[in-house]
Amino acid sequence: MSVLVVGSVALDSVETPFGKADDVLGGSATFFSASASHLSPVQLVGVVGNDYPIEQLQPLAERGVDLSGLERADGRSFRWRGRYRHDLNVAETIETHLGVFSNFRPKIPEQFRSAPFVFLGNIDPRLQLEVLTQVDRPKLVACDTMNFWIESRRPELLELMARVDLVTLNDGEARQISEKYNLVKAARWIMSRGPKIVIIKKGEHGAFMFSEREVFFAPAYPLEEVFDPTGAGDSFAGGFMGYLARCGEISEHNLRRAVVYGSAMGSFAVEKFSIQRLLEVRPHDVAARVRAFHRLTSFEQELEA
Amino acid sequence: MSVLVVGSVALDSVETPFGKADDVLGGSATFFSASASHLSPVQLVGVVGNDYPIEQLQPLAERGVDLSGLERADGRSFRWRGRYRHDLNVAETIETHLGVFSNFRPKIPEQFRSAPFVFLGNIDPRLQLEVLTQVDRPKLVACDTMNFWIESRRPELLELMARVDLVTLNDGEARQISEKYNLVKAARWIMSRGPKIVIIKKGEHGAFMFSEREVFFAPAYPLEEVFDPTGAGDSFAGGFMGYLARCGEISEHNLRRAVVYGSAMGSFAVEKFSIQRLLEVRPHDVAARVRAFHRLTSFEQELEA
Repeated sequence: MSVLVVGSVALDSVETPFGKADDVLGGSATFFSASASHLSPVQLVGVVGNDYPIEQLQPLAERGVDLSGLERADGRSFRWRGRYRHDLNVAETIETHLGVFSNFRPKIPEQFRSAPFVFLGNIDPRLQLEVLTQVDRPKLVACDTMNFWIESRRPELLELMARVDLVTLNDGEARQISEKYNLVKAARWIMSRGPKIVIIKKGEHGAFMFSEREVFFAPAYPLEEVFDPTGAGDSFAGGFMGYLARCGEISEHNLRRAVVYGSAMGSFAVEKFSIQRLLEVRPHDVAARVRAFHRLTSFEQELEA
Repeated sequence: MSVLVVGSVALDSVETPFGKADDVLGGSATFFSASASHLSPVQLVGVVGNDYPIEQLQPLAERGVDLSGLERADGRSFRWRGRYRHDLNVAETIETHLGVFSNFRPKIPEQFRSAPFVFLGNIDPRLQLEVLTQVDRPKLVACDTMNFWIESRRPELLELMARVDLVTLNDGEARQISEKYNLVKAARWIMSRGPKIVIIKKGEHGAFMFSEREVFFAPAYPLEEVFDPTGAGDSFAGGFMGYLARCGEISEHNLRRAVVYGSAMGSFAVEKFSIQRLLEVRPHDVAARVRAFHRLTSFEQELEA
């Protein structure tokens, strides 16, 4: 089964304590696709300007990302410039140029409308809502968001939440939208607005998945070298949704493993700049990382316990 | 098998967003004992002043904490006053009065010297070293420390590390002592100084256990109400050491479960002020919390993986 992703396709310029990269592939839909395409076919909807190095997306197309929903508009592509200090959990935005992204209105191609899994990347909630009017009863719709929309589009965001099955956001955003500091309470509050599942991403501190009766947690993989955290959250979402699409069925077992696949793909994403590492890894690398996650957290229960 | 703990027995005054408590039982050896005594006999060595409400320690004695190594010195007891804001991971110290603790020289009673498990709570590394000269080839010696000793007693602390089997410290302290920001590197650096096992506690973000070939991680239990985080780290250590003492054997399986028991006891400690909740919980509560930890992180591997 395939995953439809709607989000940004950008050019990132990033500086970390370990190096810098200029105008490399970035954006939520790009990271999501590079990650999810390890597990299932991906259909991407987004926009780039006429300055975008489209040929650099060719490796994505070769691995099953359908780019026919990538619009080319007249103008400059979305650009983000950011920096990380030693605390790689905190990105400092230096500049953002929306370019053609500021007039983006997602148009879902006919052949994408029946995608069973839909991921609404972090864009204006009004556009996320527009996507929902163009898709045909998907099995699962997930959305991401960010502080900017929580502040500026709260009513629309709450309307969106009432219409999606799953929300992914980071700990700060969960606190901001719910106005609750405790993450369990924040997740319960968000669920009370509609979504049956809430995933709270804590960056290097792992991710919680809350549902009505269950809580699952997966740590971030303890890497000796975290090179560039940009895109980790979208790569997580890609691994999560891609794994669910591969399974086809949404069960508690599959959801838990999907969180682990998400964490595994996130852990690859941060090993190099941009989507470089995500393009390199092979199925056996993914399987080995998932096994390593199992080893990292598993313990045997005692018979008497 | 029994656990010997040497550490502080204090009176804490704590303010959290949820309430305040004055002159309640505190100190590393107190929390450790309240926690470990759920799992094994405990022998406590410490000092209090003549103002200490010794009778309040009676519940500990009743559950198997041998207080015959608790010295009563002339003077005031160790007092700590602190505050937590909404970020319960950060304690703000308002005042510390060492009192009789400033002249403390641990004397291990004859009947405690053969304890197979020894925990050196966070005190001056010179005193921690003195304890080592008084014990008779324990199976496992663990120590804790803090930023103050890392700054002021670095040579002695490194000497201690060369002589213990296991070190527990928090993430900030691991970074400080190793001068490495990455926690995997920090743990490897500490192991290179001697200890075979390093446990890095990240408060609400869980705990890593590193050994030569293995890494294990347990999250903190996601509680809706964290009332007072004071003593969580020492309660973790108590659960960890108490569980190992109960097992008697140090194996990878037992070490992993010990981290989970530590996390479980830490999660109880934060539910009320002081050692109150640790005194209330019953064996079935502990077993249920350990099962809940298993449920929180377990996922099934796929056959093909």
